[in-house]
Amino acid sequence: MSIKIADYVVNLMPYKSGNQSANTDRESFKKLINLASNENQLGPSPKAVEAMKNAIHELAIYPDVRSEELQIALAKKLNKHPDQLVFGHGSDALIQYVILTFSQEGEEILTAEGTFIGIYVNANKLGRIVKTVPLKDYTYDLDAIAENITSTTKIIYLANANNPTGTMFTKEDFVNFMKQIPSNILVVLDEAYHVYSYDIPGYTDGLTLDYPNMIVLQTFSKSHGLAGLRIGYACGPVELMQYLVKVKLPFDPNILAQAAALAAIDDIEFLELTRDTNKKSLKMLTDLFDEYEVEYAKPAANFVMILLQDEETAKDFAAKALEQKIVTRNLKGFKIPNAIRISTGTIEQTEYAVKVFREILKK
Amino acid sequence: MSIKIADYVVNLMPYKSGNQSANTDRESFKKLINLASNENQLGPSPKAVEAMKNAIHELAIYPDVRSEELQIALAKKLNKHPDQLVFGHGSDALIQYVILTFSQEGEEILTAEGTFIGIYVNANKLGRIVKTVPLKDYTYDLDAIAENITSTTKIIYLANANNPTGTMFTKEDFVNFMKQIPSNILVVLDEAYHVYSYDIPGYTDGLTLDYPNMIVLQTFSKSHGLAGLRIGYACGPVELMQYLVKVKLPFDPNILAQAAALAAIDDIEFLELTRDTNKKSLKMLTDLFDEYEVEYAKPAANFVMILLQDEETAKDFAAKALEQKIVTRNLKGFKIPNAIRISTGTIEQTEYAVKVFREILKK
Repeated sequence: MSIKIADYVVNLMPYKSGNQSANTDRESFKKLINLASNENQLGPSPKAVEAMKNAIHELAIYPDVRSEELQIALAKKLNKHPDQLVFGHGSDALIQYVILTFSQEGEEILTAEGTFIGIYVNANKLGRIVKTVPLKDYTYDLDAIAENITSTTKIIYLANANNPTGTMFTKEDFVNFMKQIPSNILVVLDEAYHVYSYDIPGYTDGLTLDYPNMIVLQTFSKSHGLAGLRIGYACGPVELMQYLVKVKLPFDPNILAQAAALAAIDDIEFLELTRDTNKKSLKMLTDLFDEYEVEYAKPAANFVMILLQDEETAKDFAAKALEQKIVTRNLKGFKIPNAIRISTGTIEQTEYAVKVFREILKK
Repeated sequence: MSIKIADYVVNLMPYKSGNQSANTDRESFKKLINLASNENQLGPSPKAVEAMKNAIHELAIYPDVRSEELQIALAKKLNKHPDQLVFGHGSDALIQYVILTFSQEGEEILTAEGTFIGIYVNANKLGRIVKTVPLKDYTYDLDAIAENITSTTKIIYLANANNPTGTMFTKEDFVNFMKQIPSNILVVLDEAYHVYSYDIPGYTDGLTLDYPNMIVLQTFSKSHGLAGLRIGYACGPVELMQYLVKVKLPFDPNILAQAAALAAIDDIEFLELTRDTNKKSLKMLTDLFDEYEVEYAKPAANFVMILLQDEETAKDFAAKALEQKIVTRNLKGFKIPNAIRISTGTIEQTEYAVKVFREILKK
């Protein structure tokens, strides 16, 4: 081929979706219980669904560039200035926009080894350098990250709670960390799981903090079951957001995403059901693992990472669960080969999962 | 502010949406007849609407990374290999992905002056250099573009029909042009308006041509009234598309966009109505302009660009139309200050527009 393509593009790994990981097609995959993708098993927020149905007739026109109605409503809810909020089709789009706005090709992004795969993929595909620091007890080692800053570091990415380990660092840890960060480095605090973490004692809750060099990412994907529609938001100082909004695609997010998110803000009932279901489901899972003395990382999101004896045992666990129609995520690709990540389900799904896992662990 | 931001980001102009250009809010704007945005005034395809309603319950899960069902169906329809098609949330997203995949910061994109604004914005925001060649008789000057190729040219962008002028170049012109293009330069042929142009004698119809260095962009925004949902596609050789698919965001396009587009493929009735309405509407407009001897560029899409005496007359025309609730697009920003772009409407809208324009032109 004559078209020259940058090495960093040629070397990208194609993304595998859940059904590809499970070696099945999408229709067959839907018949399984997917506890591998940290999705909200309750489905989309009913208020969001109603709002979408009402907005469908508007789809021939272009979306509002600033998601203005949503921007104003969410700003009021979060006690922020509307211009502090920028919306995009999912946190992964926002991560891409942040990288494009605040760094250039060849510059460095510092993060943990074993965190959200989207940061590595987005940084690599944009020709940025990724520098990683190992996790400590499956948690972000903030001290080590601060120590690894160099003059080429442009962005630090932190996921809290962390995916795939499910652990969190505390507000105290984070505030101490920020004291060590030069003001010319942008800190991106990804709180995709904030809905599950917010009432855990010590949770950072980035939106309660203000730094001139921090952007917080949150999403409606989990909290309101809108992963398939793509809507997340970034919140930060207006001085930074004024550039981010110019870099994002003008017609992102789509009209239905804007309408659904606007309605979802008020769907407190669904939010509470989501939180309550997750708490009960997490407890059922951790009770089982306690009973069978299976090690796990303390969960702060909607999934739990268990640590089995070795890679072979983990592989075997996932295979046996799949035989019983339960899909779990093997973390070999995250360099934790003895770990399995299990998302929470509905109460019924989790009851069934506990039964299946118990049979596997018994043997 | 301490965070360093690249000059090319700092200097970006914020995107203005239709209502901002008309100095009104979005709700008031909806009460006007917007003939400024080349939207399909018939609304979304009914089959697409039904498909969306059926897919809404699936929104809590992540979208299929490859839009596989849609990919296979559209490939069959277009007589292409499925792997030749990559989907994204609108042509503007695909333009961004193409630039990211096939060029690097500081490299050059060659196009016309006075073409789709998305190419300039996307190239600038990604730190690429934009080199432009003037239009000739409001049409792409393919010879001049070929002559302006240098060793730094990486991508050539052509919009056919062109927006905002509405003109097209022919298949013969294009085939001759391609003979002059070195195989290491990627040609992007943007056919956002293909649904309106395809039966005009001499139309290029990029999907009937195969070049190892050409990617064609098309969209469901106009043809099926899905601009608000964001779904377009790129078609090119598998050797190129294998990289594009790795650069696109994995969960783009959203689930409803995939479902709507899949259903829209079969909504021939709506497509025919769209084409028929556009033809009639264009004829009503050009008949009026012929009658009043108003110069216009021969339209090959769903809009017509008229050329008035001078900038003042154009401004006055748009202002008087707006007084009668009709929004048109002043092309001052495209360096054609005496031009107004008018999109086609429904038959009723166009009848009303013709009445309003007649009153303005009479005086």
